[in-house]
Amino acid sequence: MSELELIRWIRSRHGRRGGRIIVDSGDDCAVVRIGRVDVLFKTDSVIEGVHFVHAAKPEEIGHKAVARCLSDVAAMGGVPSFAVAAVMAPQNARAEMLRGIVRGMDRTAARFGVAVVGGDVAVHAGKLAINVAMIGEMGGRQPILRRGARPGDAICVTGPLGGSILGKHLRFTPRVREARDLCGRLDIHAMIDISDGLARDLSHICEESGVGAVLEEARIPVSAAARRIGGAALEHALFDGEDYELLYTLPKAQTRRSIGEITEGRGIKLRRRDGRLEPLSSRGWEHRFGR
Amino acid sequence: MSELELIRWIRSRHGRRGGRIIVDSGDDCAVVRIGRVDVLFKTDSVIEGVHFVHAAKPEEIGHKAVARCLSDVAAMGGVPSFAVAAVMAPQNARAEMLRGIVRGMDRTAARFGVAVVGGDVAVHAGKLAINVAMIGEMGGRQPILRRGARPGDAICVTGPLGGSILGKHLRFTPRVREARDLCGRLDIHAMIDISDGLARDLSHICEESGVGAVLEEARIPVSAAARRIGGAALEHALFDGEDYELLYTLPKAQTRRSIGEITEGRGIKLRRRDGRLEPLSSRGWEHRFGR
Repeated sequence: MSELELIRWIRSRHGRRGGRIIVDSGDDCAVVRIGRVDVLFKTDSVIEGVHFVHAAKPEEIGHKAVARCLSDVAAMGGVPSFAVAAVMAPQNARAEMLRGIVRGMDRTAARFGVAVVGGDVAVHAGKLAINVAMIGEMGGRQPILRRGARPGDAICVTGPLGGSILGKHLRFTPRVREARDLCGRLDIHAMIDISDGLARDLSHICEESGVGAVLEEARIPVSAAARRIGGAALEHALFDGEDYELLYTLPKAQTRRSIGEITEGRGIKLRRRDGRLEPLSSRGWEHRFGR
Repeated sequence: MSELELIRWIRSRHGRRGGRIIVDSGDDCAVVRIGRVDVLFKTDSVIEGVHFVHAAKPEEIGHKAVARCLSDVAAMGGVPSFAVAAVMAPQNARAEMLRGIVRGMDRTAARFGVAVVGGDVAVHAGKLAINVAMIGEMGGRQPILRRGARPGDAICVTGPLGGSILGKHLRFTPRVREARDLCGRLDIHAMIDISDGLARDLSHICEESGVGAVLEEARIPVSAAARRIGGAALEHALFDGEDYELLYTLPKAQTRRSIGEITEGRGIKLRRRDGRLEPLSSRGWEHRFGR
């Protein structure tokens, strides 16, 4: 059973209770109504050996744990406000390392106006893992969902892609301000943060919206890291994960920075520089269970 | 560095920003203001080898993961409403076990009117761990804090204590309804859920409130499990953790079920059946880091 299958199964179990669940699991954040406020709610974990290696700096690990949630709140067009963090520490963890993690979490949270209001520390026989849950608010605006893309929309990204493994995956800036700015100025139809890779995250938007897409090879912003890492730089820009840039769609007339277009039908195609249209497999990584 | 020291250090770093943090970390839940609503926010983890053994039933593990957060919301006198869950699964985890965990989480959440609106699954090299973050609401009432106990208050608990390791720690009923009922009828001054053991959790109330306490040996409700487990049953009732009953204080005139009394000064004493007063060490378990 793959992680996607499990998540689908989790999602299939219950409907929207009492009208207070505006967006259920399956988008970047859930949206629930509390009083008269649309509240974003998100949980995310970073785990040694999966999201960082043992040699990573504690401050960077703490940053990443918080910034991943910030990126999800950004992808809904929301304003992050509060977080709680749970640290699972190995038995031999040193206090200085744990302080570094907390420092990294704090610094990033403070930079985005988020207060870390709760924490839990448990010692276990495994490796270091940190879970962050975050609350955000829509400030009266509608949340931007994955399922809002329409044929004819332009596809845009907030920055260059690929090769995040060279360092960006630990040091990226979550696009909270950019998202808020975009949503304030433009008619953003659909948005997601690029954690699984451009191709895969675009396929999430397409599946949820019931549309297809064409990407323009010549317009995909390839990062310097993607060029440095070796192999085909374009492949890195398309399939590497953890760039944490935002991928969004909007009416064509509202942008000149489009990297492609939403289409009728299904599937994602890549238009090569010579004009050829090729189907794009939705590669990218997915956790897989033993059976 | 002990877990308590780390948590104290975490708590010491920031004040209450913008007046929207009503209760910072250090109580059973944080309380933050969203719109006009006081929102409870809590994170908690259960980890194989710490909170359950490998042989535990998946449904019970899922139950415990959710019920621990429910118990914390109860301890504030709140109404739980939404949860998000993050599962860290070992590489060889079987789909059927993961489904059982989700079933257990769902069933318990639904029983208490909570919708699980988000989930995250990651596969790692370690053992099974589940983190649940929960939102609750105060419904217009004031949250009940640890720091509200006053000299002369009666001390009460919602049920018998000790020996939870024989099974209750996996199957307990979080006292959400009892708490709501108590807070509606009575003038509850301070409350906490008993996760670390009666003595230790009472010491949390006393430290936060700047008071002492006397417990009456003859009135402490000793569970059947505490008698069955062997050794001194009273010791189990005083020092075993994970009963998840509520411990609360209120004006003496409002109850006939008191197990002791809040006093001026510091420290907790035990009044033996023969009238002798003995100091009670605040034993109970605490995670300890290597250094």
